[in-house]
Amino acid sequence: PSTRVARPLLHGYFRSSCSWRVRIAFALKGIDYDQVPVNLIKDGGQQLTDQYKELNPMQQVPAVTIDGVTLSQSLAIIQYIEETRPGPALLPADPQKRAKVRMICDLIASGIQPLQNLYVLQKIGEDKVSWAQHFIIRGFVALESLLKETAGKYCVGDEISMADICLAPQVYNAERFKVDVDQFPTIKRLNQTLLALEAFSTSHPSCQPDTPADLRA
Amino acid sequence: PSTRVARPLLHGYFRSSCSWRVRIAFALKGIDYDQVPVNLIKDGGQQLTDQYKELNPMQQVPAVTIDGVTLSQSLAIIQYIEETRPGPALLPADPQKRAKVRMICDLIASGIQPLQNLYVLQKIGEDKVSWAQHFIIRGFVALESLLKETAGKYCVGDEISMADICLAPQVYNAERFKVDVDQFPTIKRLNQTLLALEAFSTSHPSCQPDTPADLRA
Repeated sequence: PSTRVARPLLHGYFRSSCSWRVRIAFALKGIDYDQVPVNLIKDGGQQLTDQYKELNPMQQVPAVTIDGVTLSQSLAIIQYIEETRPGPALLPADPQKRAKVRMICDLIASGIQPLQNLYVLQKIGEDKVSWAQHFIIRGFVALESLLKETAGKYCVGDEISMADICLAPQVYNAERFKVDVDQFPTIKRLNQTLLALEAFSTSHPSCQPDTPADLRA
Repeated sequence: PSTRVARPLLHGYFRSSCSWRVRIAFALKGIDYDQVPVNLIKDGGQQLTDQYKELNPMQQVPAVTIDGVTLSQSLAIIQYIEETRPGPALLPADPQKRAKVRMICDLIASGIQPLQNLYVLQKIGEDKVSWAQHFIIRGFVALESLLKETAGKYCVGDEISMADICLAPQVYNAERFKVDVDQFPTIKRLNQTLLALEAFSTSHPSCQPDTPADLRA
């Protein structure tokens, strides 16, 4: 039996913002990984199969198989990568800066993204676009105000962090739902800075193995 | 000027599950703190004032003023406490166990709680109870399945952790929305174990400074 450590396996979807968070973290850390596409739309949703439920009982992407275990919840996955892999730190060393990074992450991951998640919008039905816009704008008003205090070149000071990993995918979602991001100059400026980085461009939804041809960059 | 370190100040609400998470963390760590009640119902919601928005731009509880800064987002607050205060660890030392703890925390904090939060239910209107039940039950089905794999005496093995801090307040919410927790034997058993602990009973919504007389234990 081989003792070579297997590459991490990401079960994700090109357009899922939480999957993109994990792809950015792998890219920033320089970790090679394999992808298994889970198409959230096709066949009524491939995340709903019994087979996938074994990987993530919440029937959401992402799930990552790594070091012999399968983990779900993107921020738990990213912090596991941070705590077990070398490479650039995704959290600052200073406890108050770490807290600010986590505050921004959780504002997005608990305060915005869950309310515009696919399974929530399916329950909302025809009003889904205005519902999603409402909660994204509400969250971005708060986020803009926080980022004005914390941001330097990146979300918290001049070092990239987990907060940036959460920001760019949420802006991508906002644009999908036609939110005018020009209203939020700090968010807009940070997002532009991030999209210019290789770790964000190579992991972008427009160029994944499962990106449909008509959505490719 | 005094150099004595001020006690942390919790801006919270007796019945907010996210405020209770922070109270449990303070209690487990043996940290004395002061409370400023923010009544989410009275005066149309005291969290909506300009004064409170300075503390938490999301206009939610909790916010904690500690070591000269004000932090919001309960899990960011709790991890700041964990990283700056002595006392029992709220996260295991082993990275895979830490990941499991965070996975459970985030399942609750991103996958369940945001969907039955006050400001979401206010937007849902008259169907709010069945909406909340739907997402709590959906989340508990997944959580029960995860906990069957991870639980010992507590959510992850036999040591108390941040996962337990998230579990008991979410069960309290489930009961408020008349979800039958008997359907979830592992969740039920863990919750009973937790409620018997002093850190959970002293911080319980039924005995806070702002608990109304008719809801006191």
